[in-house]
Amino acid sequence: MSQIIKAGLVGVTGYTGMELARLMVHHSSMELVRATSRSEAGKKLADIYPFLNRLPLGDLVITQPDAADLAEECDVVFLAVPHKTAMEIAAELIEAGVKVVDLSADFRINDKAVYEAWYKVEHTRADLLKEAVYGLPELYLDRIMGARLIANPGCYPTSAILGLAPALKAGLVETSDIVIDAKSGASGAGRGAKVGNLFCEVADSFRAYGLPTHRHTPEIEQELSKLGGTDITVSFSTHLLPIDRGILSTIYTKLRAETSLDAVHAAYTEFYADKPLVRVLPKGQLPETRFVRGTVFCDIGLVVDPRTGRLIILSAIDNLCRGASGQALMNANLICGLDIDEGLPMAPMMP
Amino acid sequence: MSQIIKAGLVGVTGYTGMELARLMVHHSSMELVRATSRSEAGKKLADIYPFLNRLPLGDLVITQPDAADLAEECDVVFLAVPHKTAMEIAAELIEAGVKVVDLSADFRINDKAVYEAWYKVEHTRADLLKEAVYGLPELYLDRIMGARLIANPGCYPTSAILGLAPALKAGLVETSDIVIDAKSGASGAGRGAKVGNLFCEVADSFRAYGLPTHRHTPEIEQELSKLGGTDITVSFSTHLLPIDRGILSTIYTKLRAETSLDAVHAAYTEFYADKPLVRVLPKGQLPETRFVRGTVFCDIGLVVDPRTGRLIILSAIDNLCRGASGQALMNANLICGLDIDEGLPMAPMMP
Amino acid sequence: MSQIIKAGLVGVTGYTGMELARLMVHHSSMELVRATSRSEAGKKLADIYPFLNRLPLGDLVITQPDAADLAEECDVVFLAVPHKTAMEIAAELIEAGVKVVDLSADFRINDKAVYEAWYKVEHTRADLLKEAVYGLPELYLDRIMGARLIANPGCYPTSAILGLAPALKAGLVETSDIVIDAKSGASGAGRGAKVGNLFCEVADSFRAYGLPTHRHTPEIEQELSKLGGTDITVSFSTHLLPIDRGILSTIYTKLRAETSLDAVHAAYTEFYADKPLVRVLPKGQLPETRFVRGTVFCDIGLVVDPRTGRLIILSAIDNLCRGASGQALMNANLICGLDIDEGLPMAPMMP
Amino acid sequence: MSQIIKAGLVGVTGYTGMELARLMVHHSSMELVRATSRSEAGKKLADIYPFLNRLPLGDLVITQPDAADLAEECDVVFLAVPHKTAMEIAAELIEAGVKVVDLSADFRINDKAVYEAWYKVEHTRADLLKEAVYGLPELYLDRIMGARLIANPGCYPTSAILGLAPALKAGLVETSDIVIDAKSGASGAGRGAKVGNLFCEVADSFRAYGLPTHRHTPEIEQELSKLGGTDITVSFSTHLLPIDRGILSTIYTKLRAETSLDAVHAAYTEFYADKPLVRVLPKGQLPETRFVRGTVFCDIGLVVDPRTGRLIILSAIDNLCRGASGQALMNANLICGLDIDEGLPMAPMMP
Repeated sequence: MSQIIKAGLVGVTGYTGMELARLMVHHSSMELVRATSRSEAGKKLADIYPFLNRLPLGDLVITQPDAADLAEECDVVFLAVPHKTAMEIAAELIEAGVKVVDLSADFRINDKAVYEAWYKVEHTRADLLKEAVYGLPELYLDRIMGARLIANPGCYPTSAILGLAPALKAGLVETSDIVIDAKSGASGAGRGAKVGNLFCEVADSFRAYGLPTHRHTPEIEQELSKLGGTDITVSFSTHLLPIDRGILSTIYTKLRAETSLDAVHAAYTEFYADKPLVRVLPKGQLPETRFVRGTVFCDIGLVVDPRTGRLIILSAIDNLCRGASGQALMNANLICGLDIDEGLPMAPMMP
Repeated sequence: MSQIIKAGLVGVTGYTGMELARLMVHHSSMELVRATSRSEAGKKLADIYPFLNRLPLGDLVITQPDAADLAEECDVVFLAVPHKTAMEIAAELIEAGVKVVDLSADFRINDKAVYEAWYKVEHTRADLLKEAVYGLPELYLDRIMGARLIANPGCYPTSAILGLAPALKAGLVETSDIVIDAKSGASGAGRGAKVGNLFCEVADSFRAYGLPTHRHTPEIEQELSKLGGTDITVSFSTHLLPIDRGILSTIYTKLRAETSLDAVHAAYTEFYADKPLVRVLPKGQLPETRFVRGTVFCDIGLVVDPRTGRLIILSAIDNLCRGASGQALMNANLICGLDIDEGLPMAPMMP
Repeated sequence: MSQIIKAGLVGVTGYTGMELARLMVHHSSMELVRATSRSEAGKKLADIYPFLNRLPLGDLVITQPDAADLAEECDVVFLAVPHKTAMEIAAELIEAGVKVVDLSADFRINDKAVYEAWYKVEHTRADLLKEAVYGLPELYLDRIMGARLIANPGCYPTSAILGLAPALKAGLVETSDIVIDAKSGASGAGRGAKVGNLFCEVADSFRAYGLPTHRHTPEIEQELSKLGGTDITVSFSTHLLPIDRGILSTIYTKLRAETSLDAVHAAYTEFYADKPLVRVLPKGQLPETRFVRGTVFCDIGLVVDPRTGRLIILSAIDNLCRGASGQALMNANLICGLDIDEGLPMAPMMP
Repeated sequence: MSQIIKAGLVGVTGYTGMELARLMVHHSSMELVRATSRSEAGKKLADIYPFLNRLPLGDLVITQPDAADLAEECDVVFLAVPHKTAMEIAAELIEAGVKVVDLSADFRINDKAVYEAWYKVEHTRADLLKEAVYGLPELYLDRIMGARLIANPGCYPTSAILGLAPALKAGLVETSDIVIDAKSGASGAGRGAKVGNLFCEVADSFRAYGLPTHRHTPEIEQELSKLGGTDITVSFSTHLLPIDRGILSTIYTKLRAETSLDAVHAAYTEFYADKPLVRVLPKGQLPETRFVRGTVFCDIGLVVDPRTGRLIILSAIDNLCRGASGQALMNANLICGLDIDEGLPMAPMMP
C-alpha cells in the first residue's frame, strides 16, 4: 500500500453516515479526513458518537459542507444526504475533480421523467445521469472501476435485484408475474425524530407501509428490465421489522418451464461463481438477516414449489451495510483501485 | 345468564393453554373447573403461572387428563394438545356427551387422505371428520352453534381465509394466482425447549421457514376452494417475526377486471357488515399486529395497484388469541348459547 | 350501579392518555364522555388510535380542553398533561365542582419549595397542596375516598414506595442506607418525537439516565420519610429497558438486626393482607415485569442475604397501568364510590 | 509477521465458541486450526454456522476433542466448555506443552475450598490453581505475558472489577458497603435449550435471577479484596435483559470523604491512562451497552451524589466479547507475544 486514500463524508449524522464511520475505523488504505454536518459542525465525531471514544476517528472535527474544501482535501467523497440535496453537491465535486459515491437516489434512475414522477422534485443535474454508474458491482464491475460518479443502489433494490438477476438472465422465470415482498429493519427509516419510529411504536409489532408506491419501485424495475431484456413491472411491498438492521425479500416468480431445484441452484451458483460477496446458500438452507448483519454479504436461498410452478427466492442483506454504506465503500474501493472488500468486516456479529 | 358453564382444558402448559387461562379469568358466564397436564398434575395453576397469583384461577389444581372425570365435571372441553394426541380424547369426550373445541389440526381437514399426506400420521377417528365443524364463525356461524365438535382453525389459516373470503365470494380475483406471504410472532412456534426458539436465535433477526410445505397449506386451500367454488392452490410462505404475538399476512391476488379500491372496499365492508370481530379498515389504512394484540379482532387493509392489476390484502390477527385460544372461546361461547364475544377483551394493549 | 359515571380526559395523545382509553373500553360503570387535545381536536378517537376502530369509544370526538365544558359534562376528570400545565386546569375544575385525578407531578410534593427546586417552575396553586391526596390506595385509602383532588403517584415512586412500605413501617431496616436501582420500559419516556427514543436508539441496548437527580426522588423520599418516621434520603437510579412497559426496582436495604426471610415475608404478607392489588410472592419467587403487564398489580419478591445483612426487595409494576393510568382509574373508582378494581384487567397478557 | 500462530478451540457450539470463531475470521497472525465438539464432529463449521459460508473458517472440519491431537497441532488452545469439564483437559494440554486459555471458572478461584463451596463439585486439579493467572490484562499484564494457563475472567466480574479497581486502589470508597446491581443480555445464559431462555419468555420482560448466591460472587470478592487490601464482601445481584449482548453494572459505593467528581474522574483517568481498552467517559456521559457491542472495550461512567455521599460507577461491556471470547483472545495474543488487540474489532455496530 503506497499512499492512503483520503475520503470525505457529507452528512455524518444519519444512520448511513454513522455506519460509514464504523467501517472506516478498520480501513487501512483509506482514511476519513472530512466529515460534514450543518447542525453539528465544530464538534468532534466522538462528541456525537460516544462509541468512537478513544479511536483515532473520534477526534475528527466535523465541518460545514464546502465543496471547495472537500475537493482540496479528498480523493473521494461519500454523499449521505437526502435526495435532491445530493444532486448539486455531486455535480460541484465532480467538476472539481473528486470522485463521488452518492448514497441518495438522485442518479439511480436513468430517465429524468421517471425520477421526477416518483420523487416529486425537479432533477436539475440530469446532464450527469448518463455518466453516473449504478453501483451494484455484481452487475457493473467494469464500469464502476472507471467511474467518476457512482449512484449507490437503494437498500431494497440491492436485495431484490441480486435475488432476481440470475433467474432473469437465464430466462428461467416469467417476466410478467413477479412479486417482491420485502421486510426491513427500522434503521431503513432513518434517524429523524418521528413518532412513528419511536421504540414503543415499532417494537413488538409489524406492519406494511408505503403500498403500492414505494420509491424504490422504478429503480428495481429499471434494473430488472435490463436483466430480463424486456419491460418488467413488479408488485413490490415493504414492511417494517422490529429489528435494527436487515432486509429479507421473499420473491415470488413463475417458472417458465418445469425446472428442478438442482437446475435453478446451478444457474445461481454459476452466475455468482466469481462474485464472493453474494452467497448462494446450499440447497435446503434459507437466509436469515442475522447471518449478514454488519457485512456486505447478500445471502440467497432458493425454493422450487412444483405444486404451484413457482420459484421462490429469499434474499437477505444488511440494509445499512450492503444496502448503503458498505456497498458505498465497495464502490469507493473499486474506483480508487483497491480490492472490493478492503476494510469490510466479513464475519457477522452472532448473536 | 342463570347458570355458570363449566369448562375443562386439556393441556395447560403450552402457550395456547396459557392464553386460554388468561381469557377465562375475565369470563363471567364460564368457569374453568379442570386443567390437565401429564407433567404438572398436582400443582396449582399459580405455581406454574405466577401471573395468576391471588386470582381465583390460580388455586385450581392441575389434574391428570381423564376423559371420564372431564365428562363428569365439564360442559365443554378445550383440547390444547398436539395433533394426533387430540383425536382419541376428542372422540371419548364426545361419546361421553361433552362438547369439544379441539385446537389441534386433527379435525380441520375434511379428507382423511389429505390429512395423512400432510401430517404423516394415521387418522384413527376419521368417522368424526364429517361431523366436526370448522370453527371460523364468520363463515360457519349456524353450524357452529349446533355442533358437538369444533375443529378450531389454525392461526395462519384464520388470517388468510378471513383476508380472502370476500374477494373470492364476490369473484373479484383470479383463483389461479394467489400468493400468501405470512409472518408470525414466536409464540406460534410453541413452548418447546428448542435452540432455534431461544431469545438469542430469534431476536434481532428475521427468517422464512418451512417453505413450501407448511402444514397449514391444505387447510387454507380447502376453505378457499369452498369460497371460490373451484379447486384453489396457493403459494403460502411463513416467516418468523421477533415479536411475541401477531400474524400479518400480505396476500397478492390478480383482479379479474379493472376494479377500483372503492368497489373492493365496498365488497369487503358488506361481507363483514354484521360480523363485528373483523374490522375492514378505512381506505388508506393498513393493519398493524399491535392493533389486534390480545384480542380476537382480524383487521383487514386493502390496496389496489392499477400498475400491476393486483389487489393486495393485508390481514392481521393475534396468533394466540384470534388464531387459537380466543377463537376457541368464541366457539365455546357459541356452542353454549352465549354471545360470541363473552369474556373476550376488545381493547388491545398499546403500546 | 344505578347510574353511569361520566369521565373526562384532558390530554389524550400521550401514552398515559392512550392507556386510559384502553382501560375505559371495559369499564361498565364509568364512561368516557370527553377527551381533549389541542392538536387533534375535531378528530374521532379511532382516527388517531386505529385500535379503537369499531369500538364505541372510537367514535368519541376529541375536543379542545375547556374547563367549563368539562365541568358541565363530567363527574370526574383525568389530567394527562405535563406538570405545570396541570396545576391551573386542576384548580379550575375543582372550583367548578368536578373531581380531579391529576397524573402530573403538580400536587404530589407537599412542600412548595421542594417542588420548585426539583421541577424548576413556580407552583402557582400551592393553596391546593394541602388538600390534594397522594393517590396510593395501599397507604391512603380513606383519604382518597373523600378527596376532590388526587395527586396520582409517579411510576417509579409507586414501585419504590410499595416495595419499602412494610419494611419501614415495621422498622426492619436502616433508614440511612437505602439504594433503589430502578429500570423502566420506554413508554415511561413519553410519546414525544426525540432521537433518543427511536427504536434504533433503544432496542438491543441498555443505559442509565438522569443520575443522580431524577425528579421522582423527592416524591419517593417524602413518602418513605412518613413511613419511616424520620427524614430519609435515598440513592435512586433510573435505567431505560428495551421493552414497552414495566418497571422493576431492585431495592437494597440493611437489616437492623438479624432477621430471617420467614420473618420478613410474614411482615410483608401481613401489611398487604387486605390489599389484593399488591402480591407478595411466595418465598423464593422473584417478580418479572411480564407478570404484571397491563394490570395494576404490584408484585414483590423478597431476598435476605445473611452474608451482607441486607434485605433486597424486588418490586415490579406496569409503569403505564399501575404506574399511571390504571392507578388513576383505581383512584377515580374510589372517589366515585365504586370498587377499586372496576374496569381493570387482572390477567396480564402472557407472553 | 513471521509465523502464523495455530489455535485450537474446545467446545465450538456454544455462544462463546461462536464468538471466538467470529473474531478469528479477522485475525491475521493467528489461525484456528482445530475446533472440537462431541456432538458435531465431522461437520464443517459452516454447516452449523451458516454465517461462515464462503469464509475460509467455514471449511474447517470439527473434530472430537483429543488432547494429543490438539497438542500436536496447536500453539494455544481455548477451552469453551462448562466448568468441571475444563479442569482435566486444561491439565493434559499444559502437560503436553500447549498454552491454555480457559474460559470456564475452573481456575479463577485461588482457594480450592471456596471454589468447591460455590460450584458444588470437587476440584481435581487444584495443583494448578497457583500457576493459573487471572486473565484481566488491566490488572495482571506482566503475569499474563509469561503464563501457561490463563483463567479467563467471568463476564460479570470483568465489568465489576474494572469498574471498582481505581476507586479501591486509590482508597476513595468504603470497602464495607458495596452494592453491584448487574444486568446482562440473554447470551450470558448460554445456548442450552431451556424454556426460560425462549424468545417468548425473555422478550418484552425483565427479571432478577440467582439472588443472592450467583457463582460470580466469590470471583468478584477475591479480586476486589486484593485491590482494596482487605476482605471485601459485596451485594451482587444479576438481572436478565431482553437483549442479545451486553452487561451494565451499576455500582453503589460510599465515598470515604467528601470528594468531587473532578477528583474521582482524575483518579480513574490516571489508573487507565495506558490501558486503551478501558474508556473512562467524559464527565457527564454514561455508558450504554450498544457503544461496546462486539468489542473488548469496557466503558466507565462516574456519578458523584453529594446528597448521599455516594460514588456511583456505571460499567459496560459486551458479555460475549470482553466478558468471554474477546478477552480470551486478548490473553492469547499476550501469551503468544502479539499486540493485545490484534484481530479485535474496535468499532461497535451502531445501531
